[in-house]
Amino acid sequence: MSFYQSLPLPAVRLQDEVFAPRIRTGIERTLPGAIERCRETGRLDMFRLQWRPGMPNRPHVYWTSDVAKVLEGLAMDYELTRSPELGRQLEELVELVVSAQEPDGYLNPPFTLINPQDRWKNLFNWHELYCAGHLMEAAVAHFQATGRRNFLDAACRFADLIDREFGPGPEQRHGYPGHEEIELALCKLADAAGNPRYRKLAAYFIDERGREPNYFLLEGEAFPTEASPDQLINRQAHRPVREQTEAVGHAVRALYLYSGMADCADAAGDAELLECCRKLFENIENRRMYLTGGVGSAARGECFTMDYDLPNDTAYAESCAAIALAFFADRMLRHTGDAHYAEVLEKCLYNGTLSGLSLSGDRFFYGNLLEVSESTATSGHQCRERQPWFDCSCCPTSFCRFLPQLGRFCFLAGNGEAALIIPAAGHVVCSPAGAPVAFDVSGRYPYEPEVAVTVRGSGRFTFSIRLPEWCPEVGIQLNGAPVSGRMERGFCKIDREWRPGDRLSLHYAMPVRLLRSHPAVAANAGRAAITRGPLVYALESIDNGPRPSQLILDQDPDFRLASAPDGLPPGTVAVSARARRETRTTAGSLYAPGSVSSEPVRVTAVPYALWQNRGPAEMLVWMRCDD
Amino acid sequence: MSFYQSLPLPAVRLQDEVFAPRIRTGIERTLPGAIERCRETGRLDMFRLQWRPGMPNRPHVYWTSDVAKVLEGLAMDYELTRSPELGRQLEELVELVVSAQEPDGYLNPPFTLINPQDRWKNLFNWHELYCAGHLMEAAVAHFQATGRRNFLDAACRFADLIDREFGPGPEQRHGYPGHEEIELALCKLADAAGNPRYRKLAAYFIDERGREPNYFLLEGEAFPTEASPDQLINRQAHRPVREQTEAVGHAVRALYLYSGMADCADAAGDAELLECCRKLFENIENRRMYLTGGVGSAARGECFTMDYDLPNDTAYAESCAAIALAFFADRMLRHTGDAHYAEVLEKCLYNGTLSGLSLSGDRFFYGNLLEVSESTATSGHQCRERQPWFDCSCCPTSFCRFLPQLGRFCFLAGNGEAALIIPAAGHVVCSPAGAPVAFDVSGRYPYEPEVAVTVRGSGRFTFSIRLPEWCPEVGIQLNGAPVSGRMERGFCKIDREWRPGDRLSLHYAMPVRLLRSHPAVAANAGRAAITRGPLVYALESIDNGPRPSQLILDQDPDFRLASAPDGLPPGTVAVSARARRETRTTAGSLYAPGSVSSEPVRVTAVPYALWQNRGPAEMLVWMRCDD
Repeated sequence: MSFYQSLPLPAVRLQDEVFAPRIRTGIERTLPGAIERCRETGRLDMFRLQWRPGMPNRPHVYWTSDVAKVLEGLAMDYELTRSPELGRQLEELVELVVSAQEPDGYLNPPFTLINPQDRWKNLFNWHELYCAGHLMEAAVAHFQATGRRNFLDAACRFADLIDREFGPGPEQRHGYPGHEEIELALCKLADAAGNPRYRKLAAYFIDERGREPNYFLLEGEAFPTEASPDQLINRQAHRPVREQTEAVGHAVRALYLYSGMADCADAAGDAELLECCRKLFENIENRRMYLTGGVGSAARGECFTMDYDLPNDTAYAESCAAIALAFFADRMLRHTGDAHYAEVLEKCLYNGTLSGLSLSGDRFFYGNLLEVSESTATSGHQCRERQPWFDCSCCPTSFCRFLPQLGRFCFLAGNGEAALIIPAAGHVVCSPAGAPVAFDVSGRYPYEPEVAVTVRGSGRFTFSIRLPEWCPEVGIQLNGAPVSGRMERGFCKIDREWRPGDRLSLHYAMPVRLLRSHPAVAANAGRAAITRGPLVYALESIDNGPRPSQLILDQDPDFRLASAPDGLPPGTVAVSARARRETRTTAGSLYAPGSVSSEPVRVTAVPYALWQNRGPAEMLVWMRCDD
Repeated sequence: MSFYQSLPLPAVRLQDEVFAPRIRTGIERTLPGAIERCRETGRLDMFRLQWRPGMPNRPHVYWTSDVAKVLEGLAMDYELTRSPELGRQLEELVELVVSAQEPDGYLNPPFTLINPQDRWKNLFNWHELYCAGHLMEAAVAHFQATGRRNFLDAACRFADLIDREFGPGPEQRHGYPGHEEIELALCKLADAAGNPRYRKLAAYFIDERGREPNYFLLEGEAFPTEASPDQLINRQAHRPVREQTEAVGHAVRALYLYSGMADCADAAGDAELLECCRKLFENIENRRMYLTGGVGSAARGECFTMDYDLPNDTAYAESCAAIALAFFADRMLRHTGDAHYAEVLEKCLYNGTLSGLSLSGDRFFYGNLLEVSESTATSGHQCRERQPWFDCSCCPTSFCRFLPQLGRFCFLAGNGEAALIIPAAGHVVCSPAGAPVAFDVSGRYPYEPEVAVTVRGSGRFTFSIRLPEWCPEVGIQLNGAPVSGRMERGFCKIDREWRPGDRLSLHYAMPVRLLRSHPAVAANAGRAAITRGPLVYALESIDNGPRPSQLILDQDPDFRLASAPDGLPPGTVAVSARARRETRTTAGSLYAPGSVSSEPVRVTAVPYALWQNRGPAEMLVWMRCDD
């Protein structure tokens, strides 16, 4: 049973300078844009079941997931705004989607239209269970937003069909998804529909995975699927999940699986499975994660590679993978109550996820590099300039459903506690001790250290303040006087009878910190990264001239905070530092003895998530430095 | 008409310490190994035309090329050795190959056996003309080695068929190869068979390429080929070749095309086409080539990318591409008489080609990285340890035909000149003025600066000594006294009446040189490479401890020459230098403020081509340095 629970979406209303504007542009630009792209590309039309071979816009096996993710986001945006227009759109799209359900419960137009005879025959590649999972998540979001059961019931009929089809019985398929996601979705559906069978099915998918004889290999003998023993690792199906200790294979698949494992472990009190999740998380955090929270170093296969393989200029670090890591970290935080998991969560939220989205809300990175130079070509154009859409458009649709949840990550409740995870300004309502209590969080976090929390309500409960590990000291005062609390699991926990108007003054010391990487990360030899609080900073050529790789940070960098350059949101804090600009000369030759000179400069670093919002640029996170 | 001509293979007998042992292991290990692999995998058996669907070893569309390249190497090895055993093997294999020719001249078992109805329908992907080209090269080599016409006649029958099938006529296909190679092969065949029609066909393939309407796109409308407008550039078919000024797409394809263009331009006196070759060469040399002569930065598509995109740890730099660049450079040198092209040729020969082959002659790199660390994973295992063979085994079979030609690159003749391109020790016979003259080249080049050339014969001719651009000064004495020559096209040319026993003493100054790269190469910021003469040096962990990225060269590196470490060929010259070893500590964390300290060390660098001959290792060419 979870230590903490997520709050309902509308219970956290952010008013900060980083997340709140992103939520707003998500509603105003990202979501409408994605609906429009789904319309233009035929993704919506396919639910009318009128597509026929030879017509344009041939439905692709993953298209249902795109629509489901957009629908999930739309339901959440509606829940946050109660906008009648969004509500109308929501019901219209839900009706369209549900109308495509087959009598037996199957709901996935590409198969209904193109190859109904091939259902479940290519779990390895064909995304059927993945799409089903996203439909379930969308249905749950719709139910939570509206209380209406039409979509939820359709999702349950589909889940019932899958539950009949898959399982340990002799007549059932002993398979599991080639792209995980349905595991965590079934857990959500079980809660929303009050049907524990769905969670049991999720547990079946998890524990069957990777067992011998391998289902994907058997499946591939009966039907051409492109599965091979070498590729099982990409699907986390190379061995039973409980024997897996390293994060491997396709990063998004892996993180959705681990999230489902965490949810199943928590619900069942399965300590062994939760321990697996812990180990996998630790492997990611300590060996396979970029400083930004990006994961998955390899473009080929979009996958985890090996310990300390973290190239900057060929990083893949897919936007969806950072979002998935945030989901996994949030679950581990809630299930264990251990603030350590919030460290990775916060890193993802402020850096590697939001970097995938333009400030305008309508352009996207698929991969998130940590270094882009004029000559960085191998990772492709779509990692140098954000694009309006992709053929495989998982990232844009992921943002539709991710942005509305930003508030939910900041504040949790449970075990008689109200827990401040990320002190972004906003208004929160929760019921740590039965009765609703409101909290006003104010301040300019993550740009300024002072945060105030004002209690609007009363009752005896614990107020838990996460102590970020990047923070040398969190100063805590209650109503102007020092206060002490229990230090537990990375929180300062203050138990008391709270009264209306009680005011906590928090000071999160946030000096500029120069970070190094573990010496096994060859890509970062002789380099350091500028950070402040949870923010990772980057040098852009627009602020610092071309070729940021020619800038070398001084031993005494004399860091100063500065106003952000024009074109970034007012209030954004930049960091300036003392450096020198090297001039290498090879007289035009590609290679020559050459000469090197340098001149002193000050450089300006901006938050990594905001790079490439002022036109194409070169960019660098890990900067050369004098030691 | 070429300025210089290649000499017949047996006319250059190398006795040096670098090339000669490679030629020997090529004959003793590389070639027999490749024949054995071709036998085991069914590549030879397919020529018996007894394979049927369902049997193992399904012939692949490029298999004919593997056998042809091995045969070409076998013919050359026979020509060099006149070994009866090699001669027997050669005739047996030639008979086998020729026996698979269809009555109309078609010779390519995968199509004969599997899909005879699909001939020429997928030029974009199916390698038919590529395989035909390699068969022609093999047939020419067999004819030159033995004087026998059976294979040559078969190749001509095949070429005649292709000549009927392709061309500008209304009934002919206006196509060209998806993998170039046949262009240069047709030029060779034209010379060997004395039939200029084949050269005309080569010119047709060259000039038709990339014209509108694009053949590959038309072809793809009639037959599924996977061609798309985006992929035309990978095949150098995005625009007419005479309008191409940048080296693009698949590197081996590109370099074979350019080689064919150079040969056609030379034979036809087509100055415009030769100028295209010059520009393409210049683009490669000055913007798209690794210091080692490796080319093709991107593993995906095995292709050229963009100017200055030269990542070290994800270099592709396929062995075949470095070999192909050597072929192209050799042609440009011969056709123009300009020693500058020998600069790239020599770089390829001593570095980026031979690095692909183990000293034992039986293990191969497909890609040749310039940096390998414990955490470099993204380029895959086969770039970290040489492998005995690959499914797509172009590189091993390329070495079979490349090694026997090493001598041919070192010495040229023509225009009344004997030209010493690379002064590797050996015995040369050529006829610069009609009558044969022999030359003994002695010395320990490229390890020691002194070279002596003794003339064994007499006559009035020009002896031309290439002046390497890496060399600050070449000292030249004749019979113990200073001698002056004409300085022309990068050569010192000495015209005189030569007599038996005349002795040239050459001194190629070869200080250790620290090279920088052009500042646009972001990967090499703050780094320098150690070179001496034509050799690029590398740091291996076996000599310098783990994590070579933690070594920093001193501002005063105090370079010293040293004996090579055990396990490398005796006589190999290593370079030692003053450096410091940095210790970064993050207390086990992936990222932390950490601390950095360092201690002085001396490092030992070995020739790049010899790395990974003493077990798996980390390796680095571009070393961090204090400026």
